[in-house]
Amino acid sequence: MRFDHVAQQVPDVAAAIAWWQQMIPGTRVLYEDETWGLIEAAGARLAFVMADQHPGHLAWRVSDRELESLAAEHGKTISPHRDGTRSFYLQAPGDQPVELISYPEPD
Amino acid sequence: MRFDHVAQQVPDVAAAIAWWQQMIPGTRVLYEDETWGLIEAAGARLAFVMADQHPGHLAWRVSDRELESLAAEHGKTISPHRDGTRSFYLQAPGDQPVELISYPEPD
Repeated sequence: MRFDHVAQQVPDVAAAIAWWQQMIPGTRVLYEDETWGLIEAAGARLAFVMADQHPGHLAWRVSDRELESLAAEHGKTISPHRDGTRSFYLQAPGDQPVELISYPEPD
Repeated sequence: MRFDHVAQQVPDVAAAIAWWQQMIPGTRVLYEDETWGLIEAAGARLAFVMADQHPGHLAWRVSDRELESLAAEHGKTISPHRDGTRSFYLQAPGDQPVELISYPEPD
């Protein structure tokens, strides 16, 4: 298990990316479209999401096997995503969503 | 500038730390009292704060000199904290608080 990213709800992905690029020198844009963005900003991967699509959350990466084991343990259903990742959410104390996510395994 | 921590508002610091210790194997408690906690959880430093004391936020660490320069640039006042750190907050897109923080310099 390894910390993967922070996701924040923003009204405008492009405007959010522009703000962070100005704020944190050397910010790299890893992905950007109108409804989802991902940057690497001085040691953190920060995702921008739409309020009607995803909650703001913290995500930890696990293996496929760990994901299935943890989902079963917590009685959760795993959702596939368009980029090949799979994940489910838990609620941490303070009503803070936590995502457990697995990435496609390399061949 | 380097990513430092995520802070989340929780109703009970001890209960939050217990939840995360159960959730993420190997979580280390770096600090804990009734109003503030700090853990290291599989690659992320996660702070727990009280709603009446701090907003939930993401924090990036800077040097004292950078902190003063950035505060002046953004017209912000630097606040000292009980642990010797100094910081100020900005609002990122999506009304997301961002803390810029400096730590006491080693002798």
